[in-house]
Amino acid sequence: MENNINGAGALIQTLADCGVELCLANPGTSEMHLVQALDGVPEIRSVLALFEGVCTGAADGFARMTGRPAATLLHLGPGLANGIANLHNARRANSPMINIIGNHPEFHVGFDAPLTSDIETLARNYSSWIKSCSTSQTLAQDGADAYTATLRQTIESQGQIATLIMGADAAWGDSTGPVTPNGLPERGKVDETTIAKIGDLLGQGGKNVLLLEHHAIGTEALAAAGRIAGKTGCRLLTGTFPARIDGGPGRVAVERLPYFPEQVLASLDGTENLILVGGQIPASFFAYQGIPGQLIPDDCSVHRLSRVEENATDALNRVAERLGAGTELVKHFEKSPIERPQGELSNRSIVQSLAATLPDDVIVATDSGGGNAAYGLCQNAATNSWLSLTGGAIGQGGPCAAGAALACPDRRVLAMLGDGGSAYTNQCLWTQARESLDVTTVIFANGTYNILNVEYAKLGVTEVGEVAASLFDIGNPDINWVDIAKGYGVPGAIANTAEELCGLLDQSYETPGPFLIQAHGELQR
Amino acid sequence: MENNINGAGALIQTLADCGVELCLANPGTSEMHLVQALDGVPEIRSVLALFEGVCTGAADGFARMTGRPAATLLHLGPGLANGIANLHNARRANSPMINIIGNHPEFHVGFDAPLTSDIETLARNYSSWIKSCSTSQTLAQDGADAYTATLRQTIESQGQIATLIMGADAAWGDSTGPVTPNGLPERGKVDETTIAKIGDLLGQGGKNVLLLEHHAIGTEALAAAGRIAGKTGCRLLTGTFPARIDGGPGRVAVERLPYFPEQVLASLDGTENLILVGGQIPASFFAYQGIPGQLIPDDCSVHRLSRVEENATDALNRVAERLGAGTELVKHFEKSPIERPQGELSNRSIVQSLAATLPDDVIVATDSGGGNAAYGLCQNAATNSWLSLTGGAIGQGGPCAAGAALACPDRRVLAMLGDGGSAYTNQCLWTQARESLDVTTVIFANGTYNILNVEYAKLGVTEVGEVAASLFDIGNPDINWVDIAKGYGVPGAIANTAEELCGLLDQSYETPGPFLIQAHGELQR
Repeated sequence: MENNINGAGALIQTLADCGVELCLANPGTSEMHLVQALDGVPEIRSVLALFEGVCTGAADGFARMTGRPAATLLHLGPGLANGIANLHNARRANSPMINIIGNHPEFHVGFDAPLTSDIETLARNYSSWIKSCSTSQTLAQDGADAYTATLRQTIESQGQIATLIMGADAAWGDSTGPVTPNGLPERGKVDETTIAKIGDLLGQGGKNVLLLEHHAIGTEALAAAGRIAGKTGCRLLTGTFPARIDGGPGRVAVERLPYFPEQVLASLDGTENLILVGGQIPASFFAYQGIPGQLIPDDCSVHRLSRVEENATDALNRVAERLGAGTELVKHFEKSPIERPQGELSNRSIVQSLAATLPDDVIVATDSGGGNAAYGLCQNAATNSWLSLTGGAIGQGGPCAAGAALACPDRRVLAMLGDGGSAYTNQCLWTQARESLDVTTVIFANGTYNILNVEYAKLGVTEVGEVAASLFDIGNPDINWVDIAKGYGVPGAIANTAEELCGLLDQSYETPGPFLIQAHGELQR
Repeated sequence: MENNINGAGALIQTLADCGVELCLANPGTSEMHLVQALDGVPEIRSVLALFEGVCTGAADGFARMTGRPAATLLHLGPGLANGIANLHNARRANSPMINIIGNHPEFHVGFDAPLTSDIETLARNYSSWIKSCSTSQTLAQDGADAYTATLRQTIESQGQIATLIMGADAAWGDSTGPVTPNGLPERGKVDETTIAKIGDLLGQGGKNVLLLEHHAIGTEALAAAGRIAGKTGCRLLTGTFPARIDGGPGRVAVERLPYFPEQVLASLDGTENLILVGGQIPASFFAYQGIPGQLIPDDCSVHRLSRVEENATDALNRVAERLGAGTELVKHFEKSPIERPQGELSNRSIVQSLAATLPDDVIVATDSGGGNAAYGLCQNAATNSWLSLTGGAIGQGGPCAAGAALACPDRRVLAMLGDGGSAYTNQCLWTQARESLDVTTVIFANGTYNILNVEYAKLGVTEVGEVAASLFDIGNPDINWVDIAKGYGVPGAIANTAEELCGLLDQSYETPGPFLIQAHGELQR
């Protein structure tokens, strides 16, 4: 078969045929043939980022909003390494994603050129699928297989990460052309015995908790869980940092577990049956001396309706049917009037300003820091899709917001970020400016890694020495986020009062494109 | 033995006793006991960075200037991952470094808390020594062993990277206290047969090249190589991107190999004997279709005087003695008057401005992009220590400059950086401001990953499509580096003419603390 296509061309066309729409790229010399291939496949939108953590965080945000994998294009081991922190978060979010990592051809690796390193060991940290021995003839099929590996079932928007480490000779060598996409596997169904057991357990009433995680908090799954809760009086809980939950007035009410282990145990206190749907027994985020790591009250029995790889929506629907649970008793979040605060900024007034101005249908991206405190109040304010920092690797919120905006150009994205995490991946602002993304970023600028002050106090240290204090303090000098945003082409302003903050938020929601607000006040420090 | 010290305290005191003076930190909850320990050991200076790539890049710069390892303190797998790109560069620079990575206690790992990941596989990418099973009782000894592992011989300023992955329980548990530092191994000596063989080969004259790499371009080694070259007429060459070379007027003249494989082959054309001292046969930075990867001319014989782990200084001195090579014929770089350029900025006038204003005893840190072009002219301008991007992982120059300034507070550091690489690790500016480091940063702001334009043209593509062009273009929007620097507390200015650039450089050299100059002109684009 005579054919002029090379491996890179066949790979990119195959990925487009599979349904890949977006490639977040920071290419280098070893990826030149892939750039050439992207140039010829307009079905895939290519978006440049100035740092690979922005590529991977944005691909995560895209996946959370669409349920489909974006591709990333990264440059050998160091390019991949820069993306790993947000790949860690994406793995914890069960986000589907395909990473294409350029590499030297195998015949060049032995010469130990400067960029040579062991890429496959890096990829093991977060990948569910890795291939590093493609030839130009296998590359298209390897791409199709990578796509399949990322998705358990398209509709459930929960998947995993595939990494294709590709020698430049596989890209430049001859190919017989694109291949046909594979069929996609279906999620396994929960067996009838388990449905009956859990249904009967819930039917007996008592202090029961349905702990819904991963795709078990998808819209359809949550509707079923809401019916079960209405019928049986069980509590609906999700984990501390869900990848995505669609909430706000009119949506099924779910509580999030708190952060600290003592708080989690207090929240679950008195629970008779903890029923896991898609997730695992709550664990302390960190280990502490003398505090348990697995967080289940004494006398609480743990049961499982479904594992992460099983179809939770189907399982919850079947339990609801077995219980004869209708929609009439479902508890929804309710709309409450939220007054616009006045005067100096504090964490409380920042949160209230955000809730009071929140536009309907907003996507909220959070990171470590302030945004998490806004969750509760915002559920009574406006319909929203809420994205959290799933893996604790800070610097995810801004890139994730960019990816969500690329996925949903008709929705406003609000990134509520701590200043510490924002510094990690500040380059996301440039991509937001270049692609004119409708992202409003609010920096909770308290000038400190505040959680570390709290954690240090938990050690029982009453006097914080000079060195320790300096390691928690990211003031001195204060970071001016408006200057940094301006440097990347994103307009912004500092809000010193609640009125200013509300005004700037209003203005940003009415104006297309990105905007950054530094929420800053004496009380913040 | 009654003792109140915990594992963290014993580790930090031991590292101080070994000679560690600097800890570049970005800690999290799992590292709180280490922060507490650092608070009690003032011999170690603790410096915070807003991003881990700054920690590892600065530790590399410190090592290049002192020959001793700094410690880094990083937060689990994601914190380490963010530092790996510059660890890759540090490995290629043979820089000694000790990474301390906090982790969950082993008993907590099984609960799969959000930050849990496979840290050891990440560390394999760049580490020569890894330990991940310390207890509070072994931690101090493990730290002493890590220190030893980083150094082959202190005086040679060439070493390797050790990574101590440390469960929080090893930090908080009881210890019997610090341990005595280990003795340090000596570098092996080259056998007399090799000395005689290489000496005799050189003594015969002919077109011979001494390729000096790693510690073979240290001051003492270079003095011996200079005597050999004076006596025998051989050429002195070093690799394309040496970790550190001390040059300028009065220092032994060495050529650097060029970048592209065709240029390397042209440079070596006609060479009869290529003698490797500390390094390897030159390899093409990337692989290209139809171009060889190992870059040796036909009919050139390859010999080796010393391997990287052997004592090159001793070997070169012995060869010089055997040849009876005195100091009278050594070729040095010579001082030439360099005129201050005028008018619009171009790459050429930027380089000339830098050379014309260069202060003696400067440390120059480069990355990808413009700074490399300045090397030649600067060798006739002022004495300098020149640090290059050893591993091709861009974003190293700014952090490396910070580390060099921490190592040498009496010397001005000049970072000559491309804009693409600077965006990767821009957070280094904040650490430069906080620590009042005497770093002058010049950004070669051409708004493009220019090397990729060159590489793309090498594919034979005559028309660059819209997508490809967008993936090489980091203008649109233009990055304003002065705004970004201001955001981090570093003053700066844009230079649009050569006169402005020279004036700003003069001003910065006279003013303590950091300063950033964006070298920007129409001709740059």
